[in-house]
Amino acid sequence: MADQTSPHDIPDVSGLVVAVLGGTGDQGRGLARRFALAGTEVVIGSRSAERAQGAADGLGADLPVRGLDNAAAAAAADLVIVAVPWEGHRELLASLEEELAGKIVVDCVNPLGFDKKGPYALPVPEGSAAQQAEAVLPRSRVAAAFHHVSAVLLLDPEVEEVDLDVLVLGDDREATDTVRALAWLIPGVRGIYGGRLRNAHQVEAFTANLIAVNRRYKAHAGLRITDV
Amino acid sequence: MADQTSPHDIPDVSGLVVAVLGGTGDQGRGLARRFALAGTEVVIGSRSAERAQGAADGLGADLPVRGLDNAAAAAAADLVIVAVPWEGHRELLASLEEELAGKIVVDCVNPLGFDKKGPYALPVPEGSAAQQAEAVLPRSRVAAAFHHVSAVLLLDPEVEEVDLDVLVLGDDREATDTVRALAWLIPGVRGIYGGRLRNAHQVEAFTANLIAVNRRYKAHAGLRITDV
Repeated sequence: MADQTSPHDIPDVSGLVVAVLGGTGDQGRGLARRFALAGTEVVIGSRSAERAQGAADGLGADLPVRGLDNAAAAAAADLVIVAVPWEGHRELLASLEEELAGKIVVDCVNPLGFDKKGPYALPVPEGSAAQQAEAVLPRSRVAAAFHHVSAVLLLDPEVEEVDLDVLVLGDDREATDTVRALAWLIPGVRGIYGGRLRNAHQVEAFTANLIAVNRRYKAHAGLRITDV
Repeated sequence: MADQTSPHDIPDVSGLVVAVLGGTGDQGRGLARRFALAGTEVVIGSRSAERAQGAADGLGADLPVRGLDNAAAAAAADLVIVAVPWEGHRELLASLEEELAGKIVVDCVNPLGFDKKGPYALPVPEGSAAQQAEAVLPRSRVAAAFHHVSAVLLLDPEVEEVDLDVLVLGDDREATDTVRALAWLIPGVRGIYGGRLRNAHQVEAFTANLIAVNRRYKAHAGLRITDV
């Protein structure tokens, strides 16, 4: 793998059980839906197990998705996606340190504020949401990904292919390759390595720019990386 | 223009005289070359007028490019691109406040550091290089653009089309539209509005991620915005 030069070079992730914390939100449900459509066993996590199961049921009875409370969802999975609101991010992850130990944790949270002039990046003491996750989860393998994926497109049954690349950041090569493979499960999406975790802030913050693009051009903008 | 929803909707910029400060570096020469190839009159600025003229001559005698010292280049142009090293950025711009008054100033500087782990974003007291330019140039119309354009591709005579979008940021609609039109002069490139100047930091810093992509995949990576 050392001289890997193609983003197509990915490990097999069939059989991986994926949890989505905050999985009742649009982003979480959208990702759960797409992974389940690809045959992946998904567990939606929420503060309320009932609401989590309701979100799972809402995605369709034929999909391999179930709902549990956040701690049970984290415990049940091999890989855990963090799609919770920025408010409460640190507290939730700290409360699940034990359940998340030894696992790949994928942060896709964008710390943004909004005012009359639109969206802007919030300052984060640790540098980024992903670095905050790393700080409170010393026994987990933290990566960052799925920041720019439109929940609207993920949830739209008319949209068969999603036209964007998912940048995967992290310092653990095996973990980022696994997360890249997960991104490739979504039709149209490529999972591309995007740098070390210390460079996650700008990827999270860039969501503010994509929102500005969406407002100007009435679009669901995403990124493609050229020459890769 | 208020309900513009296509990035193709751009003003006519033929007749605009463009200066490139720091125009003897690879990025500056690359941009100067592409604008001149499109028929734009370009003035390369440098601390030394002789070196500036040497860089202009090096781009080809048939192109409408000349070289002057930075102050004379700024004074001679309608629109001024700032492609200087981050070190000295503030001092140079402050010294040209008079020459740049009333003009569109396009900052394309990426404040990056490098260590054993690769590139990373440097902290900037004003938030970004572009916001620093705005702070020291209160009479100019500051925009930010051309952060991710590969100098190698701009300078390569074999490369006819450059496969990326240029994000243009700023709070002055007429200025950002003019800069977008400038980006469209480079074959293959689209100039797309990318948000207010306060969201420039992450666009500058994202260059660190593209360098990581380049190293992993042996590429000259750029960005495309999808659904626009």
